[in-house]
Amino acid sequence: MDLSGAFRLKDAATYPTFYGFEHRHPQLLESAVYGLPELFREDIPGAHLIANPGCYPTGAALAICPLLLAGHLDASALIIDAASGTTGAGRRSNEEMSFGEVDEDFRAYKVLRHQHTPEIAQSLSRCASRKVHLTFTAHLLPVKRGILTTAYATLAKGRDPSEVFSALKQFYRAERFVEVFDSPEEVTLKSVVGTNRCAIGMAWDRTGLDPGRLVIVSAIDNLVKGAAGQAVQNLNIAMGWGEGDGLSSLRGFYP
Amino acid sequence: MDLSGAFRLKDAATYPTFYGFEHRHPQLLESAVYGLPELFREDIPGAHLIANPGCYPTGAALAICPLLLAGHLDASALIIDAASGTTGAGRRSNEEMSFGEVDEDFRAYKVLRHQHTPEIAQSLSRCASRKVHLTFTAHLLPVKRGILTTAYATLAKGRDPSEVFSALKQFYRAERFVEVFDSPEEVTLKSVVGTNRCAIGMAWDRTGLDPGRLVIVSAIDNLVKGAAGQAVQNLNIAMGWGEGDGLSSLRGFYP
Amino acid sequence: MDLSGAFRLKDAATYPTFYGFEHRHPQLLESAVYGLPELFREDIPGAHLIANPGCYPTGAALAICPLLLAGHLDASALIIDAASGTTGAGRRSNEEMSFGEVDEDFRAYKVLRHQHTPEIAQSLSRCASRKVHLTFTAHLLPVKRGILTTAYATLAKGRDPSEVFSALKQFYRAERFVEVFDSPEEVTLKSVVGTNRCAIGMAWDRTGLDPGRLVIVSAIDNLVKGAAGQAVQNLNIAMGWGEGDGLSSLRGFYP
Amino acid sequence: MDLSGAFRLKDAATYPTFYGFEHRHPQLLESAVYGLPELFREDIPGAHLIANPGCYPTGAALAICPLLLAGHLDASALIIDAASGTTGAGRRSNEEMSFGEVDEDFRAYKVLRHQHTPEIAQSLSRCASRKVHLTFTAHLLPVKRGILTTAYATLAKGRDPSEVFSALKQFYRAERFVEVFDSPEEVTLKSVVGTNRCAIGMAWDRTGLDPGRLVIVSAIDNLVKGAAGQAVQNLNIAMGWGEGDGLSSLRGFYP
Repeated sequence: MDLSGAFRLKDAATYPTFYGFEHRHPQLLESAVYGLPELFREDIPGAHLIANPGCYPTGAALAICPLLLAGHLDASALIIDAASGTTGAGRRSNEEMSFGEVDEDFRAYKVLRHQHTPEIAQSLSRCASRKVHLTFTAHLLPVKRGILTTAYATLAKGRDPSEVFSALKQFYRAERFVEVFDSPEEVTLKSVVGTNRCAIGMAWDRTGLDPGRLVIVSAIDNLVKGAAGQAVQNLNIAMGWGEGDGLSSLRGFYP
Repeated sequence: MDLSGAFRLKDAATYPTFYGFEHRHPQLLESAVYGLPELFREDIPGAHLIANPGCYPTGAALAICPLLLAGHLDASALIIDAASGTTGAGRRSNEEMSFGEVDEDFRAYKVLRHQHTPEIAQSLSRCASRKVHLTFTAHLLPVKRGILTTAYATLAKGRDPSEVFSALKQFYRAERFVEVFDSPEEVTLKSVVGTNRCAIGMAWDRTGLDPGRLVIVSAIDNLVKGAAGQAVQNLNIAMGWGEGDGLSSLRGFYP
Repeated sequence: MDLSGAFRLKDAATYPTFYGFEHRHPQLLESAVYGLPELFREDIPGAHLIANPGCYPTGAALAICPLLLAGHLDASALIIDAASGTTGAGRRSNEEMSFGEVDEDFRAYKVLRHQHTPEIAQSLSRCASRKVHLTFTAHLLPVKRGILTTAYATLAKGRDPSEVFSALKQFYRAERFVEVFDSPEEVTLKSVVGTNRCAIGMAWDRTGLDPGRLVIVSAIDNLVKGAAGQAVQNLNIAMGWGEGDGLSSLRGFYP
Repeated sequence: MDLSGAFRLKDAATYPTFYGFEHRHPQLLESAVYGLPELFREDIPGAHLIANPGCYPTGAALAICPLLLAGHLDASALIIDAASGTTGAGRRSNEEMSFGEVDEDFRAYKVLRHQHTPEIAQSLSRCASRKVHLTFTAHLLPVKRGILTTAYATLAKGRDPSEVFSALKQFYRAERFVEVFDSPEEVTLKSVVGTNRCAIGMAWDRTGLDPGRLVIVSAIDNLVKGAAGQAVQNLNIAMGWGEGDGLSSLRGFYP
């Protein structure tokens, strides 16, 4: 089980560009399993090396992949706009993350060069069975924990948005850690922080201003479903234990 | 000078859908002038009715319109993803805006039904000289003031992104209230809150993951450039006074 | 079990002054039991009416009362300076508690007229076996949950501060919901929010600038140990159930 | 003009205890002038070395000293409870001041060993014309700027609190940077942040729970009146310039 980004990408050539290093063990990339259970659960049992997904890639893939798997989307222009709390950067002593800098501010960072972009593209392309076109932008929120992802996609020709939404609900129906809400406005950081859950909502254009447009919103706790919680979930699956062991009792609080 | 949304839209038919009322004076909509000086300054002197733009529409139009005016963009798929501090909703006593609800949270609201959408579409379409396709999503930030807008657009065929960026800088070169930064990561709420300024930055895809993609980021103070400050600026122009009178001395503070 | 302030005070004459109403059932005040288990646990079993303590009074009494019970303090000048998150005011739609008002601010409120003052004085006087002189000031913090109490007291003549501190630790030794730390600087909101616990620390003057001075700091979650959690604890005791039932599994999170 | 603490204390023996170093130029301590204009303005013109006061000492002295100068207080038990935003610690890259640590938290620090304690005691003793007994506690607020000071004092025998309050207002009547409010609840960080002003309010016991007790609250911006702004004010006085030059135009904003 690896929690870094070192074994998440299949294509070793991506590492120098996005991570700034030449991969020393490219042969391991092929055998490493990408541990995102709700999408690729069948890969996990028996795996020798599980790469635990990044935080942004988890929120993005859970929002978009079920629709790509079913062929509901035009994969030529997918946009992932996401915002994370400061713990996404780890626990470090840098001025950039000091209270005086972050509080009352909001900004984009690593624009069009974030290292999670190829990881998101890899999951989306796998589910679309083709290379997707993807733009991803990360923002820094003045909160401690949580990632909200707002994904923009276009319906494939002839698809009905309310049927697509029903299919999305159906896809996650049996998942204990994903909940699909009737409105994207119910998807908030507060509804997931402190838990291993992902909340998802979806809306579609009814005004004619952008025909065929879908907006899918997801929320996770970057430290739980986006990191250690998902690692426990992967371990549970790999070891044949109950998938929710040690995770089901996690509770956030409100307010 | 009108600060509400009542005279911003040219098409009276839009009011029932987005504002929930039938417009009583549709004949005034035609003569009302949309007071966004950096884009439509020449309309303002001599105007009888100036509609002061909305906060989100100001941030969005300033980011995108110069590129549309010059024909640099494919106007068929424009996306505006924006986030505002709580004062965007006015000073009201509602539970939704209480500290306990907003703090440590982040969420989208009025998804694909925000009343500023047709106002943004109107400015963008005017500058593109055609009806654009536009998706706009608003989010609520746990900050008091400021709007950050992240706009996604695609280059028109054959355009070079660095030349487009030079043209953007050139467009605002003489504007006292707009500053174009070399990186979108310098565009922060802190750099504009308390002032009438708009900060703008732009990046373009260099990785091949989404060829032709542009990301343009802008920041304004929703209460100043997005409301009262812009009204003063419009008044100054309408009256033939100095455009910066009463505004140039506004200063934010850091941190 | 009553969670309001209506049955907390023994002296009916206090209600008009601090709560603004004449008490209608003064005879019930005598039989009502004040449910602060760590100090008055023996009153609870068999009680017909349990008044659940206020949030500030819980934090203040747990900090000071053990020292008063043992006669360690000069009770003629006790000062309780406390600060609470916004949920202390309940979930209401008032402008005063809106994000725009509370964020980045800090202020005292109801100075020298807060309705919790006589409740604190009652607990302290009971433990001191005499009427104490007490000043209490409440402040509003830009956080959601938690009360930090900084109490100022003077040692009774001839007492040794390190022995007093040992006695304080000894007093709470067997309590599952109170932890005494070696330094008051370890007592933070984060260490208790989300739990039914109270953290306590103490320091004493070693510089000679104020001989005999003690500073005792406590922290609780105003919604748990300061409200519903303590009610459950009282109920558990009253019913003869395990005192920690339903409470021991409550966990905060960090950060 | 010195902005460090190195020349603020008259007694060189205090440095090893509170600042951790032996003072190398004790002879300069005598000639250095303590630059707190509203209290000691007459010392400043012609001074060769002006020690600019600390942030907490400014807020505390402005709240208490006028009452000590007039002999209104029993100086044997003064308590200063104060809370500061994070910029009080300077702009540094330490984990303790990171957003994830500070946000949603509140705690006391350097309890009964803060280096500003002897500086406060020195000003108070000078104004009382005797050695005062002083306890000072500092707290860390999850805000960027501002110090709120809550001071506890006892009226000297025979003094009438409403006359004392009138005298306080009278004392600051002609000061451009100090405003005395009718209620301590009007004294907020927001009312001073971004400016060189100090807001002060006062309340006294009317309930008999602590006869003779006064609570005086003050607020300053630690970076302006508590640091650079006061330095400019001192420089203006020392040079014979207008005392408000460069300061009067500073404005905060609301919200």
